[in-house]
Amino acid sequence: MEARVRSGVPGLDEILGGGFFLGQTYGITGGPGSGKSILSMEFLVRGAENGERGLYVTSEVSPEKLVRQMPFWDLQGCIDRGDIVTFSTRPQPGDLSERTEKFDLAGLTYMIKHYVRNNGIKRVVFDSVDAFVQQYDNHLPLRRALNDLIGMLESYGCTTLLIIEGSGDMSRECLEYMVDGAIELGRIETHHDVVRYAQVRKMRGTAHDMNKRAMEISDKGIFITNMRPFVGD
Amino acid sequence: MEARVRSGVPGLDEILGGGFFLGQTYGITGGPGSGKSILSMEFLVRGAENGERGLYVTSEVSPEKLVRQMPFWDLQGCIDRGDIVTFSTRPQPGDLSERTEKFDLAGLTYMIKHYVRNNGIKRVVFDSVDAFVQQYDNHLPLRRALNDLIGMLESYGCTTLLIIEGSGDMSRECLEYMVDGAIELGRIETHHDVVRYAQVRKMRGTAHDMNKRAMEISDKGIFITNMRPFVGD
Amino acid sequence: MEARVRSGVPGLDEILGGGFFLGQTYGITGGPGSGKSILSMEFLVRGAENGERGLYVTSEVSPEKLVRQMPFWDLQGCIDRGDIVTFSTRPQPGDLSERTEKFDLAGLTYMIKHYVRNNGIKRVVFDSVDAFVQQYDNHLPLRRALNDLIGMLESYGCTTLLIIEGSGDMSRECLEYMVDGAIELGRIETHHDVVRYAQVRKMRGTAHDMNKRAMEISDKGIFITNMRPFVGD
Amino acid sequence: MEARVRSGVPGLDEILGGGFFLGQTYGITGGPGSGKSILSMEFLVRGAENGERGLYVTSEVSPEKLVRQMPFWDLQGCIDRGDIVTFSTRPQPGDLSERTEKFDLAGLTYMIKHYVRNNGIKRVVFDSVDAFVQQYDNHLPLRRALNDLIGMLESYGCTTLLIIEGSGDMSRECLEYMVDGAIELGRIETHHDVVRYAQVRKMRGTAHDMNKRAMEISDKGIFITNMRPFVGD
Amino acid sequence: MEARVRSGVPGLDEILGGGFFLGQTYGITGGPGSGKSILSMEFLVRGAENGERGLYVTSEVSPEKLVRQMPFWDLQGCIDRGDIVTFSTRPQPGDLSERTEKFDLAGLTYMIKHYVRNNGIKRVVFDSVDAFVQQYDNHLPLRRALNDLIGMLESYGCTTLLIIEGSGDMSRECLEYMVDGAIELGRIETHHDVVRYAQVRKMRGTAHDMNKRAMEISDKGIFITNMRPFVGD
Amino acid sequence: MEARVRSGVPGLDEILGGGFFLGQTYGITGGPGSGKSILSMEFLVRGAENGERGLYVTSEVSPEKLVRQMPFWDLQGCIDRGDIVTFSTRPQPGDLSERTEKFDLAGLTYMIKHYVRNNGIKRVVFDSVDAFVQQYDNHLPLRRALNDLIGMLESYGCTTLLIIEGSGDMSRECLEYMVDGAIELGRIETHHDVVRYAQVRKMRGTAHDMNKRAMEISDKGIFITNMRPFVGD
Repeated sequence: MEARVRSGVPGLDEILGGGFFLGQTYGITGGPGSGKSILSMEFLVRGAENGERGLYVTSEVSPEKLVRQMPFWDLQGCIDRGDIVTFSTRPQPGDLSERTEKFDLAGLTYMIKHYVRNNGIKRVVFDSVDAFVQQYDNHLPLRRALNDLIGMLESYGCTTLLIIEGSGDMSRECLEYMVDGAIELGRIETHHDVVRYAQVRKMRGTAHDMNKRAMEISDKGIFITNMRPFVGD
Repeated sequence: MEARVRSGVPGLDEILGGGFFLGQTYGITGGPGSGKSILSMEFLVRGAENGERGLYVTSEVSPEKLVRQMPFWDLQGCIDRGDIVTFSTRPQPGDLSERTEKFDLAGLTYMIKHYVRNNGIKRVVFDSVDAFVQQYDNHLPLRRALNDLIGMLESYGCTTLLIIEGSGDMSRECLEYMVDGAIELGRIETHHDVVRYAQVRKMRGTAHDMNKRAMEISDKGIFITNMRPFVGD
Repeated sequence: MEARVRSGVPGLDEILGGGFFLGQTYGITGGPGSGKSILSMEFLVRGAENGERGLYVTSEVSPEKLVRQMPFWDLQGCIDRGDIVTFSTRPQPGDLSERTEKFDLAGLTYMIKHYVRNNGIKRVVFDSVDAFVQQYDNHLPLRRALNDLIGMLESYGCTTLLIIEGSGDMSRECLEYMVDGAIELGRIETHHDVVRYAQVRKMRGTAHDMNKRAMEISDKGIFITNMRPFVGD
Repeated sequence: MEARVRSGVPGLDEILGGGFFLGQTYGITGGPGSGKSILSMEFLVRGAENGERGLYVTSEVSPEKLVRQMPFWDLQGCIDRGDIVTFSTRPQPGDLSERTEKFDLAGLTYMIKHYVRNNGIKRVVFDSVDAFVQQYDNHLPLRRALNDLIGMLESYGCTTLLIIEGSGDMSRECLEYMVDGAIELGRIETHHDVVRYAQVRKMRGTAHDMNKRAMEISDKGIFITNMRPFVGD
Repeated sequence: MEARVRSGVPGLDEILGGGFFLGQTYGITGGPGSGKSILSMEFLVRGAENGERGLYVTSEVSPEKLVRQMPFWDLQGCIDRGDIVTFSTRPQPGDLSERTEKFDLAGLTYMIKHYVRNNGIKRVVFDSVDAFVQQYDNHLPLRRALNDLIGMLESYGCTTLLIIEGSGDMSRECLEYMVDGAIELGRIETHHDVVRYAQVRKMRGTAHDMNKRAMEISDKGIFITNMRPFVGD
Repeated sequence: MEARVRSGVPGLDEILGGGFFLGQTYGITGGPGSGKSILSMEFLVRGAENGERGLYVTSEVSPEKLVRQMPFWDLQGCIDRGDIVTFSTRPQPGDLSERTEKFDLAGLTYMIKHYVRNNGIKRVVFDSVDAFVQQYDNHLPLRRALNDLIGMLESYGCTTLLIIEGSGDMSRECLEYMVDGAIELGRIETHHDVVRYAQVRKMRGTAHDMNKRAMEISDKGIFITNMRPFVGD
C-alpha cells in the first residue's frame, strides 16, 4: 500500500483514517465561504513546517492577495523562504503574454511539472479547477486531460488537493469519481446556530470516518473536531 | 492583513466581524425587494459622512429616480456636495451615443477607473452586475473580465459592493466564488409574520457571524439586529 | 419623494403603505385565475371615479370581451365616457394591418405614448407583458426596451401596472427586479379551504406590509383584508 | 354579462358558480386516466338532450372507438340523430389525403368553422390540443393561432372545452392563461384510498367554488359532489 | 361496448374491473426490475392456455435468453407448440440484414401485421417501445406512427401490452395519454420492508380499482393481491 | 434456467437469492466512494480462488495503482499468477498508439473477446462504462453497441459486472433497463451515524432480497449483512 502523508491540519488526519496517501489526488468541495482555500493552504503550511515544499496554483486571485487574506500561521515566512511557491494562471499587470487565454489543462500540466521538478515540490494545491474544467464541453477529453495531470503528479510523488467549485456544466460528482478521495466542507443551519463541518465522502484504500464532523475556523486556521455538527437540535 | 473599513450601516460591521476589508469586493444578493439597493446606498452615505467619496453605478434606473426612491438620510445633499457620484450606464434622453449597447465589462472597468482616479473615490456600488454578466455566454471570459474589474478596484483601494440578482444563466453561486465576501438579504415567512434578514455567507480573512440576523428597513435606512429572525415559531 | 397615488382598490393602499407612487411601474404576478386582470381593471375604474383617465392595453382579449367578463362597477360607463380607453394589440376582424406580428416593445412604447399624450392618461394597465417579452431571446435588449417603456411612462407621470404571467423563458423574477414594486396574487389550499391572497413582494421608497393578506373577489370587485390567509390550519 | 350555459354534468354547474358562459372557451386538464374525455363528452350529450348540437374533434382516436369506449348515456343515439358530430383529424383507412400531416391550427380553425356554420353547432370539444400545440416551437405564433380559434368560436356563440394534456414543451400553464376558465381533474392518493377530484382553477366573470371536489365516474358518467376529496386522512 | 379479455394473470383482471378490452392497447410502466416483462409474458402464457396465440416482440434480448430467464409456467412448451411466437428486432449472429438499424415504427407495424395475419395472433406484447420511440425527436410523427400501430392491432382484434421504460426524451406520460389503459408496477420501501405493487393508472370504458395493490413474484409467476402495499407503516 | 455462479463475496450471494447467473451481465451503481470498485474486484478475487479466471478492464486508473489502492486479499498474487488479468484503456507512458481516443464500445468488445478467448476468462469487471457511454449522444447506437458487448460475453459464458457512474447525459436508469440485474451501493446518513448499504434493484430469473442491507468495508474487503441499515433511528 501507499505510504501515508500526515496533512498536519488539526483533526483532518483522524477523519482520513491516518492521513492522505502519498502521490494521490483529492478533491475539496463546498460552497462559497466554506473554507476550501484555508484548509488547502494550511495543508501546504503544515507540510512546509515538516520539510515538504508546496505549490499553490490559483486561477484568479493574485498570490499577494491570497497571503493578505490568510493572516494565519507563518504563511508569508513560508513563501519568503521558498517553502511554498505560489503561481497564478491569471495575467499580472505588465504581463505581456496574455497567459490565461491560452492555458488549458495540458499547458497547466506542463507548467506544474516544470515547477515540481525544479523545486522538489511534494504538496500541490490547485484553487480552483473550475476555470479549466469550463474550457471543455464534453466529458471525454476532460477526463483524459485530468487523468494526465493526476498521473503526472503521482509519478513525481506529489500529494495534491484539487479545489472543486462545481459551478459549470461538468458536474461536481463527475470530478469526484476521478479523484482518489473527496472531502466536502459545508455549513448546517439550525434554528439555533450555524455550524461548519468537514466530511470525507470518498477515500480509496482505507477505512475512514464517514460522518460529518464539526469544523472551526479561527485565527489559528482549521480545527476539525470529533463531534457531530448537531448541537441540541 | 488588510485594514478594515467600517461600513457605518447599523449592525452590519458587527456581523462582518469588524467591517469590510479595504480594497476588497463583496457581493450583495437577494430577491426582488430584499433591500439590496438601500443597504448599498447607505454604505455610500455613511462613507460620505466619514469623508470617503462614493460612486454609485446603476445599469438601469436614472440617478434622479434613485434619489427620489430613497428619501432616507441626506442622500440628495451628498450628491449635491459631490460626496456621492452617480453614474448610469443607461442612455439618457437626448444622449446620442447609445451608450448601453456597447458597454461591456471592459468598457465599464475603464469608465469606473476614470471616475475613481479623477474623484478620489473610496467606495463603489454596482447596481446590478446582471445586465453585464448577461452579455457573456460562457464562464471563462466573464471570469477574466470580472477579475480585471476587481483587480483595478483593489489597486485603487476602493471597497466595492456588487449587487447580484442572479437572474441570468450564469449562476449566482459562480459569482459568489469570485468575490471576497458575500452577504445575502432575504425574507422568512412564518405563519405569524414575515421577517427580513441579512446573513454573511462568505468573508475571506476573518471570523464572522454565520447566522441569519433580523434586519429592518425604516425611514432611517437599514438596521441589522443581533437577533435570529425567528419569532415564536 | 414621489407623490402617492391612492389606488382606490379596497385594502390595497393599506398594504402598499399608502398607495402607489406617482409615475412608477408595478408588476402584478400570479397564476391563471388569480385575479390579476380584475385587480388591474379596478385600479383604472377607481382612478376614473377620481378624475384620472386610464388606458388598458391587452395583448389578446378583445376589449368588448373584457368588459363582458368584468360585470363589476360601472366599467361600461367608464369606457363610454372615455374615462377608460382600451387598446388591443390583437388584430380585429376586418383589420388589414396585421398589427400583432409587427408589434414589438418599441412599437408598443410609441403607441402608448401617443395615447397618453392625446388623452391625458394618468393610469396604465398592460395585460399581459408576456407576449411581448417572448419576442426576445436574451435579456439585454429586453431590459433596454422595458426600461424605455418604463422611462416614457414615468416622464408622463403615468402610474402603471404590468401584468406578468411568467410563462416564457424569461423568468418572472427577472421582470420583478426591473419594476418599482411587485404584488403577487395567489391561492393557499388547506385541508379545509382555498383562500386567495395578495402580497406586496417589493415596494421601493417606503415601508410596506410584507405579509400575505386574504383577498376576496365578489361582484363588487376586489377586497383585500388585513387578515392572514390561514384559517384554523 | 354573458348568458350562462348549464353544462348538465351533475355537480359541474354548481362548482362553476352556475355553468359556463356562452361562447367562451375552457381548458380541461389532468393526467392520463383522469376523466377528461368522459367529462367533455358528457358535456356534449347533456347539451344534445337540451337541443344544443355538439362537435367532438379528436386528434387521434377514431370516432367509432370513442363511442365504444364510452358506453354511457345514449351517445350512439346522439350521433345517429346528428345531435353530436364527431370529426377526427387522424387519417382513416382508405383516406388518400394524408390529412393529419398538413393540419395546423389555422386549418383546424377553418374546418371547425365549416362544421359550426353548416350544422348549427353550439358546443365544441377538442380532444386534445396537444398534437396541434406541438407543431409550434415558440409561443408567439401559437398564441395568435389559438386566439384566432377562440375568437372564431366565440363569434359563433360556441361554448368550447379544450382538453389540454400538457405533454409537450409549451407549458400547461401557458394555455391556462389564454382560456376563459380552467378545470383540473386529478386523483388524490392517501394511505386509505384513491379519490378523484375536480377543481375549478380559473373562471372569468364570476365567483366560483375554488376547492377540490370529490368526483366519481360510474356507468352513468360523471358525478361531482360537494365534498372535499379527503376522507379520514 | 368491447368484449372483455380475461388476462388470466392472478389478480390482474380484478383490478382491471373484469379484464382488458378486446383489441385495445395498454401501457405497462415501471422502473428496472419492477416485473414488467414477467407480467407481460404471463399474459401471453395464460392466453395460450386458453387457445389464444401470442406474439412477443423484443427489441434487445434474444428469445432464447428470455425463455431461460423466465423459468415459470410452461413457457418453453408454449413456444415449442407455436402458441407463443417470439420475434426479436435485434440482429442475430449470422444475420446479414442488419435489421435493427432500419427498423422504425412503420417497419415494425408492417412486420407485426405479417405475423398477426399468418399466425392468427390474438395477444401481443412489445418489450419495450423505448428503442423505437427514441428514433423520433419530436412528438408529431411519433404520435402518428404509434396511432397507426395501435389502429392496425385493433383492426385485427389483438389485445396488446406495450412495455414503456420512459428512459428517453419523450416522456412516459405522453405515451400514457395515447394508450387505452396503463398499469404501473413499482416498489414501496418502508423502514420495515420493500413491497411490490401494481396500480391501474388509466382504463378507458370501465370503472376500475384505482389503488396500489401488493404484488408478488414467485416461481409461479405474478400474483396481485387485493391488499394495499402498506404493512404496519 | 441458467446455472448459478456464487460470487464468493460475503453476504452478496444471499441477497442475490443464490448468486449471479452464469453468463449474465449486472450493473453496479453508486456515488463516489460507495465501494463499487472494491466489491467488483473482490468478485474477481473470489472467482480466482475458485479457479475462475478474471478480467478487470479500467478506463482510467492504471492497473498498478488499482492494486496499491486495494491492499486486501491476495490481489497482487492473483495478478502475478495470471488468475486476474488487468487491462487499462488509458494510454500508458511510452505508449505510442494513443489508444483511448480511438476506443469505442465496438473496439472494446473486440478487445475483450480477444482476452476472453485467449485466457479462458470466466468473470469480467468493467470499471467504469461511463467514459464509453459518453461517446454516444443518442440512445439507439448505444443500446446496440451495449447489446453486442453483452451478447458476446454471454456467448463465452462470462459473468460480468458493469460499474455505472451515471455521470453523463445517458441516464443511469437507461443502462439498468438493459442489464440482467442491478445492485446499488450507497450510504444512509442519520443523526447518529453513516451506514453503507447494498440493495439488489433488479434480478432477472429469480426471487431476491429487495431490501437495503447494511454493508461494511474493512481490510478484509466487503461484508454484506442481513440487517437493515437503520440503527436506532
